[in-house]
Amino acid sequence: MTDPRAILLVRCPDRPGIIAAISGFLFRHGANIIDFDQHSTDDDGGVYFTRLEFQTGAIDLPLPDLERAFELDVARPFAMSWRLAQPGRRKQVAVLVSRHDHALLELLWNWRRGDLPADVSMVISNHPDLGGAVEGFGVPFFHVPNGREGRAAAEARMVELLDGKADLVVLARYMQIVSGAFVARFPERIINIHHSFLPAFVGADPYRQAYDRGVKIVGATAHYVTEVLDAGPIIEQDVGRVTHRDEVDDLKHLGRDLERRVLARAVRWHCEDRVIVHGNKTVVFS
Amino acid sequence: MTDPRAILLVRCPDRPGIIAAISGFLFRHGANIIDFDQHSTDDDGGVYFTRLEFQTGAIDLPLPDLERAFELDVARPFAMSWRLAQPGRRKQVAVLVSRHDHALLELLWNWRRGDLPADVSMVISNHPDLGGAVEGFGVPFFHVPNGREGRAAAEARMVELLDGKADLVVLARYMQIVSGAFVARFPERIINIHHSFLPAFVGADPYRQAYDRGVKIVGATAHYVTEVLDAGPIIEQDVGRVTHRDEVDDLKHLGRDLERRVLARAVRWHCEDRVIVHGNKTVVFS
Amino acid sequence: MTDPRAILLVRCPDRPGIIAAISGFLFRHGANIIDFDQHSTDDDGGVYFTRLEFQTGAIDLPLPDLERAFELDVARPFAMSWRLAQPGRRKQVAVLVSRHDHALLELLWNWRRGDLPADVSMVISNHPDLGGAVEGFGVPFFHVPNGREGRAAAEARMVELLDGKADLVVLARYMQIVSGAFVARFPERIINIHHSFLPAFVGADPYRQAYDRGVKIVGATAHYVTEVLDAGPIIEQDVGRVTHRDEVDDLKHLGRDLERRVLARAVRWHCEDRVIVHGNKTVVFS
Amino acid sequence: MTDPRAILLVRCPDRPGIIAAISGFLFRHGANIIDFDQHSTDDDGGVYFTRLEFQTGAIDLPLPDLERAFELDVARPFAMSWRLAQPGRRKQVAVLVSRHDHALLELLWNWRRGDLPADVSMVISNHPDLGGAVEGFGVPFFHVPNGREGRAAAEARMVELLDGKADLVVLARYMQIVSGAFVARFPERIINIHHSFLPAFVGADPYRQAYDRGVKIVGATAHYVTEVLDAGPIIEQDVGRVTHRDEVDDLKHLGRDLERRVLARAVRWHCEDRVIVHGNKTVVFS
Repeated sequence: MTDPRAILLVRCPDRPGIIAAISGFLFRHGANIIDFDQHSTDDDGGVYFTRLEFQTGAIDLPLPDLERAFELDVARPFAMSWRLAQPGRRKQVAVLVSRHDHALLELLWNWRRGDLPADVSMVISNHPDLGGAVEGFGVPFFHVPNGREGRAAAEARMVELLDGKADLVVLARYMQIVSGAFVARFPERIINIHHSFLPAFVGADPYRQAYDRGVKIVGATAHYVTEVLDAGPIIEQDVGRVTHRDEVDDLKHLGRDLERRVLARAVRWHCEDRVIVHGNKTVVFS
Repeated sequence: MTDPRAILLVRCPDRPGIIAAISGFLFRHGANIIDFDQHSTDDDGGVYFTRLEFQTGAIDLPLPDLERAFELDVARPFAMSWRLAQPGRRKQVAVLVSRHDHALLELLWNWRRGDLPADVSMVISNHPDLGGAVEGFGVPFFHVPNGREGRAAAEARMVELLDGKADLVVLARYMQIVSGAFVARFPERIINIHHSFLPAFVGADPYRQAYDRGVKIVGATAHYVTEVLDAGPIIEQDVGRVTHRDEVDDLKHLGRDLERRVLARAVRWHCEDRVIVHGNKTVVFS
Repeated sequence: MTDPRAILLVRCPDRPGIIAAISGFLFRHGANIIDFDQHSTDDDGGVYFTRLEFQTGAIDLPLPDLERAFELDVARPFAMSWRLAQPGRRKQVAVLVSRHDHALLELLWNWRRGDLPADVSMVISNHPDLGGAVEGFGVPFFHVPNGREGRAAAEARMVELLDGKADLVVLARYMQIVSGAFVARFPERIINIHHSFLPAFVGADPYRQAYDRGVKIVGATAHYVTEVLDAGPIIEQDVGRVTHRDEVDDLKHLGRDLERRVLARAVRWHCEDRVIVHGNKTVVFS
Repeated sequence: MTDPRAILLVRCPDRPGIIAAISGFLFRHGANIIDFDQHSTDDDGGVYFTRLEFQTGAIDLPLPDLERAFELDVARPFAMSWRLAQPGRRKQVAVLVSRHDHALLELLWNWRRGDLPADVSMVISNHPDLGGAVEGFGVPFFHVPNGREGRAAAEARMVELLDGKADLVVLARYMQIVSGAFVARFPERIINIHHSFLPAFVGADPYRQAYDRGVKIVGATAHYVTEVLDAGPIIEQDVGRVTHRDEVDDLKHLGRDLERRVLARAVRWHCEDRVIVHGNKTVVFS
């Protein structure tokens, strides 16, 4: 994995010749494709998505020039929306958290163990409680109080802190609503985690509601944050089984376990540039 | 397993001495307990549930007298709601179905293979389509047209057919709403199956909605039917994973597979007297 | 799905330019790629696999000529092992079975419901028991006794029956060992299903052994049959959970359920030309 | 949960009257049963197991006297093997580890978060590497070199350290074989975790073997250590799915994730006195 690599992500209207155009372009310029995944929606006027990973060691142009050439030769004729990522440039991940530490700690542990291909640049919390734990990992911790009032000021402070240091913002059980303006600053770059149920329960204390209904399965959903609360494109979900023996606390315990695993997977996939957002859904190239 | 057995199901206010009273009673009368499962809700003023399976070969009273004695000696002092079931007396199961055959056929196949400890007494459908398939299993088939108009007449006809022949009514993708009056005739004895999603989707074509949202998990829920549509006590649920590659039809295909498995499990557990309903939830003694 | 399609399956030594060559060839000849999946092993001297599905409605050559052109223009220079399949030409599937009917019936039901993109051409059994059930599906049934002695004669008779009528042979709990000579007649075209355990148990009555060890998980494995018993390339596996409450019979019941689901998936994937064998493993393009 | 509680674990030959005897005894002495789980093996001359949790706030004897009375009144007549545990007395857990930290850290994190109802008394390793991480949790760390030679001395040193401080010894990827003598000092009190596969692979680098065979599922098994390597009674298992896209490293990554989850569950259940060993299997009262 020491050879330099690049990842090309493309979305465009589906029509014949796209694969030939992309693969021909890369071959002509000496790029060796090592992973090529693609997907098209079946609808009339379908949309084509692809993710290519290729070795750049033997390309005949500097990377910026290759990008310019790709834009002119391939992207424009096919009306592509595209970007090139370099796995060698690790993303900066900022984590927002309140008092629950399980999702945050899972990310920090994965990161320390080398299982998260990114760097955790900072942790911001509206409570001071987790400061010690975070600093034990050598990660800067900022306490920015937040609430219904003072949200604008809090978000202004956070934007200041995040500026240039957050390719991704992870809401790891951050129990505050973020404003549309904040979301707009990080489009498709904020990931949230929340519990999920079959069926869904609206309102306060959903674990109590799930318990009262006697559900047999609880779950967790990681998604990109959009202006519509908890309704953004889903990246990953997982579930666990429960029985009548499980109390509300057991459901919460299992829920925490699911949340940390699902969030960790979603963050890793984002950092590996495996996720393309399309409308309100995602294509996840695994 | 040829020794005669009985199953005792009990629900009562939780207080000390219940187990001692029940097990002492059975021991004194020569009943050998071979399975004993119990559960109490943790709430103050909790509720106690138990399911006992015992051998009746050596009891000192005829079973009806044992029941009378249990009522006087144990049930009344503890304010129990209880019933005695005999696994030797197979339940009669009637299936209501429309055009989709997957859930119905799973039940019939399980029944023919001896995996369903009950008898399928009849199949009723609002469409004639599945008559041949059902009769191939040697099971009576009745075509009772139904719809928004004529529901009362259709249900009257069904009640007539079911009378005395349905310890359980299974809605195996019966695409008609059943009236409160019909439900009231079979309290805690109608099981329905429907698809489930995380999150839930309300309205028409939920698989399309799930696809549009890009869910990663689809599910199915089997529940007892109450007057509130699709909101009765859940007996069993299960889920399967999907990806962006799955079209709406793939989701439906997986959904059908989940529905038939979940419904078959729920029906088997009901027929084995493993399920106690309490409020809007179930206790399932596995 | 009414437009004619073809599926191209390729395996070759990995080197730069393969994708460009294939996709360029198809584009030049008017074939519209609608699905393109690929995989390379990471080893030095890696192997490249791909499965392309393309529309053939607008190609500029008759399909046989396109195949010849592909061989000359693309396959030879890249030393490809390849074949072209046509989803419109349904495969013929022959099922071998003994007395257990669960895996067989699942295939027949899926087939009748249109969920198996193939035709069941015949069922052969070493016992007469399942003849009635099979003929109820309108499928020819042949009783060919088999055993340690007389194997050669039995297999000769089966080969005669299968000749020209079996693109795939499915051992759906066929409790006889098939000879190396029989396997050699259907290379990579015999699928078997068997139970699996963590850890594995060797010898008689593995469910009893699993029960005695108190395993918490049982499974099933579908694989291509090679000369080495039960050690051929795995196509699909699945598992289910058990507890100390499950008796040996419960384990067997769950095992049967897993077997029929796993086998049905493996057969469908094979019939959709999604599986490429490589050495002793498979690439399954889902 | 502030009311004092005790847990009674019993194993004895199955015969009529056991439940009546136990529950009658506890009722007479003012103990309020709040959880009662039981199991009998079905074999002729079956074995009966039970776990009762009861409140001790209102008992009419000091606990040691209650134990003496139970021995005389109930245990002897029924030839019971039994013990009484007190959830209020947290178990001391010692962890043995080598260089892999994932299973160890999961235990420490669960412990710090209050999800492990026990105390981690020490960590012993044959490598010094993890000393810093462990001490960061405020847990004593001991480096005791070990290897094929010097095993006796190393184990003697460990026994010295563990003496009186280890109700449970957890091998959290301790890559040394422990001697029969060491095992004999902690009967049914050493838990080990290891990878599992369907089918099993014997010999070096099982993940490579699993990859070469193309398995679709990998797993992990937690079990009590007996003199027979990796063949002791299984407490818990879990699995995850893989595809041909997963490299050996991906399998190992998933394997680590399964190992830490499975081990954490097994340790929690042991500490909650939910596990009874019987022969080479366990009864786990969930």
